Amino acid sequence: MGTKIRLGIAGYGNLGRGVEAAIAQNPDTELVGIFTRRDPESVRPLSADVGVHPLDGIDAFADRIDVLVLCGGSKSDLPEQGPALAARFNTVDSAARAAGKTSIIAVGWDPGLFSLARLYGESVLAQGATYTFWGRGLSQGHSDAIRRVPGVRAGVQYTVPVPEAIERVRRGENPSLSTREKHTRECWVVLEEGADPRAVEQAIRTMPDYFADYDTTVHFIDEATLRREHAAMPHGGFVIRTGTTGERTSQTVEFSLKLDSNPEFTASVLVAYARAAARLSKRGETGARTVFDIAPALLSPKSAAALRAEFL
Amino acid sequence: MGTKIRLGIAGYGNLGRGVEAAIAQNPDTELVGIFTRRDPESVRPLSADVGVHPLDGIDAFADRIDVLVLCGGSKSDLPEQGPALAARFNTVDSAARAAGKTSIIAVGWDPGLFSLARLYGESVLAQGATYTFWGRGLSQGHSDAIRRVPGVRAGVQYTVPVPEAIERVRRGENPSLSTREKHTRECWVVLEEGADPRAVEQAIRTMPDYFADYDTTVHFIDEATLRREHAAMPHGGFVIRTGTTGERTSQTVEFSLKLDSNPEFTASVLVAYARAAARLSKRGETGARTVFDIAPALLSPKSAAALRAEFL
Repeated sequence: MGTKIRLGIAGYGNLGRGVEAAIAQNPDTELVGIFTRRDPESVRPLSADVGVHPLDGIDAFADRIDVLVLCGGSKSDLPEQGPALAARFNTVDSAARAAGKTSIIAVGWDPGLFSLARLYGESVLAQGATYTFWGRGLSQGHSDAIRRVPGVRAGVQYTVPVPEAIERVRRGENPSLSTREKHTRECWVVLEEGADPRAVEQAIRTMPDYFADYDTTVHFIDEATLRREHAAMPHGGFVIRTGTTGERTSQTVEFSLKLDSNPEFTASVLVAYARAAARLSKRGETGARTVFDIAPALLSPKSAAALRAEFL
Repeated sequence: MGTKIRLGIAGYGNLGRGVEAAIAQNPDTELVGIFTRRDPESVRPLSADVGVHPLDGIDAFADRIDVLVLCGGSKSDLPEQGPALAARFNTVDSAARAAGKTSIIAVGWDPGLFSLARLYGESVLAQGATYTFWGRGLSQGHSDAIRRVPGVRAGVQYTVPVPEAIERVRRGENPSLSTREKHTRECWVVLEEGADPRAVEQAIRTMPDYFADYDTTVHFIDEATLRREHAAMPHGGFVIRTGTTGERTSQTVEFSLKLDSNPEFTASVLVAYARAAARLSKRGETGARTVFDIAPALLSPKSAAALRAEFL
């Protein structure tokens, strides 16, 4: 890879900003530009040097971008944009989908690194059980759900793994764990003026799918506290594979993440897989891939010899 | 992979036995036979059905073996046998080397899964530091070193990571740690009759390379206690990557193993990579590989669709 890998960012929210920061940390990559559906004038990149362009003019950049990192909100943007952009650009994104060109999809930490941990764990311990715990971390989907409850002005939700459950898994007990036994949910809510806290709490705790199957606690706070103490987006979790080999030898493989910023970390994973997409494309290997298909060496800027010398 | 992957085992010690057990746990693999330099009559496989053959007659099995798992002691056997066998068979082994055919080398957990953890960690967190801690576990090399001390009849050595060091790394302190600050060494020694314990302890604790740079404790026990309490081969450890993204956001990726049996786990990893070697060979992809070159999906018996459905 003599020359730099030229990346574009499509969509500029928390994830897009994270990708811009991650590109700055990876000297073998460079940022060609940010592409947005908003008014480009309204977008302020971390670095003033970076060009911001309308997304619908991106075709003009086709020859200047090796890989486009798709950073639209995964709910609606990616399913729409993804296939269209992947037809014209090599892409990496964090949502599950399929496409043309060289596209690496479902890149991040779950799906992503946690998916890999589950695969490696089961592959090397054929007999056993795999457990995934998430948190402590801010869940965007559950925070959105809280905010839809009448009487709620603002709020966030933390997913919290149950420490005793993790300990039982680590001890190799191979427990059957219900949804309720694995995670608890913690809500921090700012009420609309005049709203009834008991009604709001009841509405949250009984919400199907999101909260009804969990032990959920609801805390009421004011807006200043929410902004001061709950603005960060920490997350993380654990993938634990326990298994037996031979007679009844117990073996445990554990992968865990502790993240101060979920979007910045996801962005860093995307940039590593953008490097892989650029290399695959250069070799003429097109088509949709997941993290399972990507040889680890493709993620690193280092040569095969350097990898063997430094990491093996 | 319609038919089973046919594996051979070259060398039948702890690791070879572990591979036999791991093959029994992986229904898409089958064991063709065990090949030994010892008298085949003296070798007792875990399963009485398994054929044991002289290693020097292995060429007659060339058409019946998809991948040969090299299980000789890595000190002398592998450097000698490896290249010769790899010229005629697809192979996987746990030592670092290079060869012909499809050979995956340096497979196990370190080198192996820990190497991957270091690579993934550095690739997704470009700015940061990587720490590897080993243990608590029995180190074969250090146990051998103890046994060479005059006056020592038998003994084992455990490598023990320093908990405070791991905690400092996990907290993101990014510490500079000396050899002594990362691990301690714990020796359990049976003396020859009449040997001077103080002289033996002094000889062990001051041994260059092996013990002099560590805080080493030496315990004297009788042979029955050694056999009863120190016959297992537990091991494990931690690879921790701490990094910063964006301004000064702290992010931590951790991979850890807790193994009741080091050889049985290493054997399980070898069988997963033997599966990958068989697939690469079928595609005509020959040459020496390391774990860095192997796409994760090749390790699993499951189809790409099943992997996406179950693990992504």
